[in-house]
Amino acid sequence: MKTLVICSGGLDSVTLAWHVAASAQLHSLISFDYGQRHRRELLCAADCARDLGVPHRIVDLNCLTALLGDNALTGERAVPHGHYNEQSMKQTVVPNRNAIMMTIAFAAAASGGADAVALAVHGGDHFIYPDCRPGFIDAFAQMQQAALDGMADITLQAPFVDRDKAAIVQLGAELGVPFAATRSCYEAGELHCGRCGTCVERREAFALAGVDDPTTYQDPDYWKTAVAAAAQERS
Amino acid sequence: MKTLVICSGGLDSVTLAWHVAASAQLHSLISFDYGQRHRRELLCAADCARDLGVPHRIVDLNCLTALLGDNALTGERAVPHGHYNEQSMKQTVVPNRNAIMMTIAFAAAASGGADAVALAVHGGDHFIYPDCRPGFIDAFAQMQQAALDGMADITLQAPFVDRDKAAIVQLGAELGVPFAATRSCYEAGELHCGRCGTCVERREAFALAGVDDPTTYQDPDYWKTAVAAAAQERS
Repeated sequence: MKTLVICSGGLDSVTLAWHVAASAQLHSLISFDYGQRHRRELLCAADCARDLGVPHRIVDLNCLTALLGDNALTGERAVPHGHYNEQSMKQTVVPNRNAIMMTIAFAAAASGGADAVALAVHGGDHFIYPDCRPGFIDAFAQMQQAALDGMADITLQAPFVDRDKAAIVQLGAELGVPFAATRSCYEAGELHCGRCGTCVERREAFALAGVDDPTTYQDPDYWKTAVAAAAQERS
Repeated sequence: MKTLVICSGGLDSVTLAWHVAASAQLHSLISFDYGQRHRRELLCAADCARDLGVPHRIVDLNCLTALLGDNALTGERAVPHGHYNEQSMKQTVVPNRNAIMMTIAFAAAASGGADAVALAVHGGDHFIYPDCRPGFIDAFAQMQQAALDGMADITLQAPFVDRDKAAIVQLGAELGVPFAATRSCYEAGELHCGRCGTCVERREAFALAGVDDPTTYQDPDYWKTAVAAAAQERS
């Protein structure tokens, strides 16, 4: 089994690449430049490929930016701050983003001789992103079996789909993943901002996992306020 | 129901656009430039949108050409001549092409306010292209329902999936489709070559439908030889 990993350069997908490499099944990494303001993450994906000694392809999807509409990752809108909750997460939805990237990854796997594609969607993504849920993953795998029938037999792996981000941090720590060389923040700056939903989620996951977070945040303490506010809102 | 039609500029998809427009449900046309040597077809898609008075978007996928590998539509290989048969058709397979285009079309539909996507795959495509078969169409529709769950409700229409090309020519004739302004040929020249698989299939479909073919072919009589040769091979 030679597995192509869809790697954004974020904590989850870099940990996934290390996880796949640990069983000597890593074929290559593929990343997507879709006009995200945090495209700095792509440098982290390149570092990961170099560390693991595999090829890395960045697919330029900037031609799709206008088509993908207005959202907080690619559009003019500000990145929402605070803890992930349904309202703020909705602004970061890029419609059909995962399906587009995954079909391209399957094409790359078919033409490049890989026999599996892995992606790092995880349990924490489910409640707002429909294209991160187990039902989508299963339906996508079936669609690809039909699309490539008789041409290629490529499986879809999503080993984190039922884990939360803290479990991914624990796994990464066991594997020796260089977390400081991963990028979660949705903002464009060099440092992690510490205030956007994905920074708060990252910081909280390290705390829950009991793993030291080596990340330098512009605002290192904001996450506690955000987590407390979200807990109060839920109660 | 406002339907976005995936339109290559070929006979099938232009007829589909006219078919959808006849029931006043046409939202817009979307086409893809994926480095096909016969990109002249895109001009026909633009003419179709103008004739029907709807917007037309051409998505530039040239960034994917290298990734999609070597095949007779985008690569260096010559376009196969003669009647479609399994061996020659295989050279025109672009792996996962339909799935990629369809996920992008669904994204365009979601961000553009369409509630259906239609594509013109037809019965004659089934035997070699897995991503033109009814099983793929059904699996793709289910995948999209899961991917956009709670965000958009977009159906997939493939009304020609069980028709042959002659039936499409008959429908187009009834609708008054300007067939001369459609492009089937896989070669780059201004005229239809008359010798490639899709030219032979087109010419044969007009003959089977009993409809005058207004197309000017460089080699107008080759199709008879090719059809006879294919019949002999099958017997």
